[in-house]
Amino acid sequence: MILNIDVNLQYRLSTPTDLLLQVEAADLADQRLLHAHIDCSEVTHFARVAADEGLGERIWLRADGLFRCDYTARIKVDRALLNLSALDAVPPHRLPGDTVRYLMPSRYCPSDEFQAFVAAEFGHLNGGARIAAIRDWIEGAFRYVPGVSNAQTTALDSFVQRQGVCRDFAHVLITLARAATIPARFASVYAPGASPPDFHAVAEVYLDGTWHLVDATGMAPADTIARIGVGADAADVAFLNVFGQTDFVAQSVSVRVE
Amino acid sequence: MILNIDVNLQYRLSTPTDLLLQVEAADLADQRLLHAHIDCSEVTHFARVAADEGLGERIWLRADGLFRCDYTARIKVDRALLNLSALDAVPPHRLPGDTVRYLMPSRYCPSDEFQAFVAAEFGHLNGGARIAAIRDWIEGAFRYVPGVSNAQTTALDSFVQRQGVCRDFAHVLITLARAATIPARFASVYAPGASPPDFHAVAEVYLDGTWHLVDATGMAPADTIARIGVGADAADVAFLNVFGQTDFVAQSVSVRVE
Amino acid sequence: MILNIDVNLQYRLSTPTDLLLQVEAADLADQRLLHAHIDCSEVTHFARVAADEGLGERIWLRADGLFRCDYTARIKVDRALLNLSALDAVPPHRLPGDTVRYLMPSRYCPSDEFQAFVAAEFGHLNGGARIAAIRDWIEGAFRYVPGVSNAQTTALDSFVQRQGVCRDFAHVLITLARAATIPARFASVYAPGASPPDFHAVAEVYLDGTWHLVDATGMAPADTIARIGVGADAADVAFLNVFGQTDFVAQSVSVRVE
Amino acid sequence: MILNIDVNLQYRLSTPTDLLLQVEAADLADQRLLHAHIDCSEVTHFARVAADEGLGERIWLRADGLFRCDYTARIKVDRALLNLSALDAVPPHRLPGDTVRYLMPSRYCPSDEFQAFVAAEFGHLNGGARIAAIRDWIEGAFRYVPGVSNAQTTALDSFVQRQGVCRDFAHVLITLARAATIPARFASVYAPGASPPDFHAVAEVYLDGTWHLVDATGMAPADTIARIGVGADAADVAFLNVFGQTDFVAQSVSVRVE
Repeated sequence: MILNIDVNLQYRLSTPTDLLLQVEAADLADQRLLHAHIDCSEVTHFARVAADEGLGERIWLRADGLFRCDYTARIKVDRALLNLSALDAVPPHRLPGDTVRYLMPSRYCPSDEFQAFVAAEFGHLNGGARIAAIRDWIEGAFRYVPGVSNAQTTALDSFVQRQGVCRDFAHVLITLARAATIPARFASVYAPGASPPDFHAVAEVYLDGTWHLVDATGMAPADTIARIGVGADAADVAFLNVFGQTDFVAQSVSVRVE
Repeated sequence: MILNIDVNLQYRLSTPTDLLLQVEAADLADQRLLHAHIDCSEVTHFARVAADEGLGERIWLRADGLFRCDYTARIKVDRALLNLSALDAVPPHRLPGDTVRYLMPSRYCPSDEFQAFVAAEFGHLNGGARIAAIRDWIEGAFRYVPGVSNAQTTALDSFVQRQGVCRDFAHVLITLARAATIPARFASVYAPGASPPDFHAVAEVYLDGTWHLVDATGMAPADTIARIGVGADAADVAFLNVFGQTDFVAQSVSVRVE
Repeated sequence: MILNIDVNLQYRLSTPTDLLLQVEAADLADQRLLHAHIDCSEVTHFARVAADEGLGERIWLRADGLFRCDYTARIKVDRALLNLSALDAVPPHRLPGDTVRYLMPSRYCPSDEFQAFVAAEFGHLNGGARIAAIRDWIEGAFRYVPGVSNAQTTALDSFVQRQGVCRDFAHVLITLARAATIPARFASVYAPGASPPDFHAVAEVYLDGTWHLVDATGMAPADTIARIGVGADAADVAFLNVFGQTDFVAQSVSVRVE
Repeated sequence: MILNIDVNLQYRLSTPTDLLLQVEAADLADQRLLHAHIDCSEVTHFARVAADEGLGERIWLRADGLFRCDYTARIKVDRALLNLSALDAVPPHRLPGDTVRYLMPSRYCPSDEFQAFVAAEFGHLNGGARIAAIRDWIEGAFRYVPGVSNAQTTALDSFVQRQGVCRDFAHVLITLARAATIPARFASVYAPGASPPDFHAVAEVYLDGTWHLVDATGMAPADTIARIGVGADAADVAFLNVFGQTDFVAQSVSVRVE
């Protein structure tokens, strides 16, 4: 599948301000950049740094006044749709060192609180079958409701309230996966099925020795997703961190299948 | 300074259980292992994996029945005591990619909530001087009280309650540093001044292009500390994670200056 | 049923301290005091005041040194066991003014967060049948585990962790009842079935124009319960509030069926 | 001082819905109703019930379609401005039974967490002087910022974030007062100084044997305030509780000094 991505961001800064931008799709074996271009309004500093896990890049910017960024990319996604339920869990003692971090609770994913729930509701299943059951339960029990969650909302809040947006759905799935001793992390992505069109967020779970994309909202099959970056949760992979005051002017995200 | 470390852990497992052990001091330029030996009771699996940031190692174990671990080490700590207040902050847009994660809120360090507090109370200072003022404020305003905090206690709880143990002091300092846009992380360490003798925890802050140890409890000067491992907060660097049920039998930690 | 209650409390106070004691069973139409006697060690102040809703009394004390209180009572409980499922809810607009407070969230019962959950899981039922289903679900899904909860634990924590003691069970039931727009409050009680023997806590729900006792732990049928006092949640009806420092010496609670 | 109050509320209900309305100023010794009139659009049920503590009334309504309420009142406020700092605290053991509830933590006022803070920062003062110092500290350290708080925001959140609106300021003051063992409750009020014009909220503290109004925002001196109702915190005294779905149409509140 070939995706065409167009992003436009505009913010007004009243003073010279540092920005951390993470909107570029990563160039990976299962998602090849055929073309990519980013164009920012005049800035006094522009430097790429590696993103978490070396998956993709972030851009440090220093700007003032009206800041505008246009990003366009054409990406070939070549990822097989696996039968999640057939994937085996890796026993904890066989997990690589760099997956351990994703077993642990994080800002929005207090997985340490959910062990009894996961054991009671999903303890009869293992590995990918357990993840599939968790995903199906979230998709069935939760409502996608913009505006009820905010930057403080954790998976615990969403679990209780049973509503939220894509990041909340991802946080709940990640939290329950970790509570089941399956490494899970947050992926900021582009996907054509996201509605309304916007940056999308899904989970990645570590099964059978590698990471697998799982969308608890049901909007984005794994073979339609282009990853921007990953982290423990949404705290790690905002599309834009502003280190100061900013006024929103405009934002558009378009992801079309060619 | 040469430290002699002796650790003994004993736990009883009622079924074969996976354990993740992180008790070995790391071998680093500023802390050289002169001797180190770890001896565990019989286990069915023993594998070293890299720890977070490649700083030190963790050991995956699978054991059953009475689990015992003896660790002994002799370490030469060769670290200059710097004048924290003289260190400059790195402007955000100059921060390396691998420090960015430590600007962001984590499980126990919800730094996103503290920006107004930090600006009001410490906004007149910069860089190391700001960190020193935060450290001095914590040391003065907080009481070291074992037993009031637990595995759910965040820096927000400790900030309000003004009491806790070393991990809570470290979490508050890390949280306030991040709210001041200074990368900060959690270090699990050995230090002879920790009272009662136990695993100790301090913060690391990124200033002048490198990481610096800061102990908000005042117990451990930076030149007396041997690091075991680092992470975003205590969630990432427990000395022992047990993936199942366990009964505590005994634990002792001794750190003596030679 | 006739209950014989014996309570002994002993605390050591290092300075003159105010205490608020609420251990006496209330004398009510459905629980008659046949005999009651309270005996405290020497105090400098002893004054009864009305408890919440005028149901029972509290005692203000000022004491120093070793404080001891012996309470003994013989109570005739004469309360019919109703079929909870047959009771009708009172429509909100017909609720008396003094029940309104018990529709609202309180310290340990953040019912405002649970409306979606209650609608999804129990929305097909009404009134007493809904309460009975909630009670049965809690009794089935939660484990009675002393020591996992503390004075900060809310119904939201317990709901997620699915474990706790009687006060936590009561808090969850109260929270879900309020989220279903059924007034619910907390009752501190004596009950012979409580195990281990101790002060017990249950919920009261307002159905068919009056309050009904409901124990989500399943330990105490309504016809075996003697109420001490009521409030919005456990914050309102501790058996002892100490306004200062205190050291626990001894406590025993015995409730025997005659 | 004579206040002229005009309130207009309009909501759209898509189905017959129960509403609990609490907008009428109470008729009390220190605030006399010279004139009052409430006019609601057609409803199928209209019943007054007593409000908390018998201070004022609430109205249960059942309505459908466009719901409109116009309330107008002319009130003579005759309340002396006292020197708060000169008022004595009532020792806990002398507190009347009906003030005890307001010593305890509530939904938005977790006072049990703030004892160390209050002792450290305000422990050198007593009674009204302590309350005045707390009020002045809040007024100085906190910023009045609409939009940063929501229906889940507690005094703990506001304390950390140091910003909010009138209800948040009141919650912080109430919380710190209770942590200092001074009964404190929430009052929903009208006041001409509130900016922007809206329902206003202040604290009441129990000193020298009676309740005293205190506004931590500094907008409303006690002699300009007309109380609507009181409760443990904002959970108890919303101007409108809707038991179902509703769409906001319009709202205006005007309070003019004659």
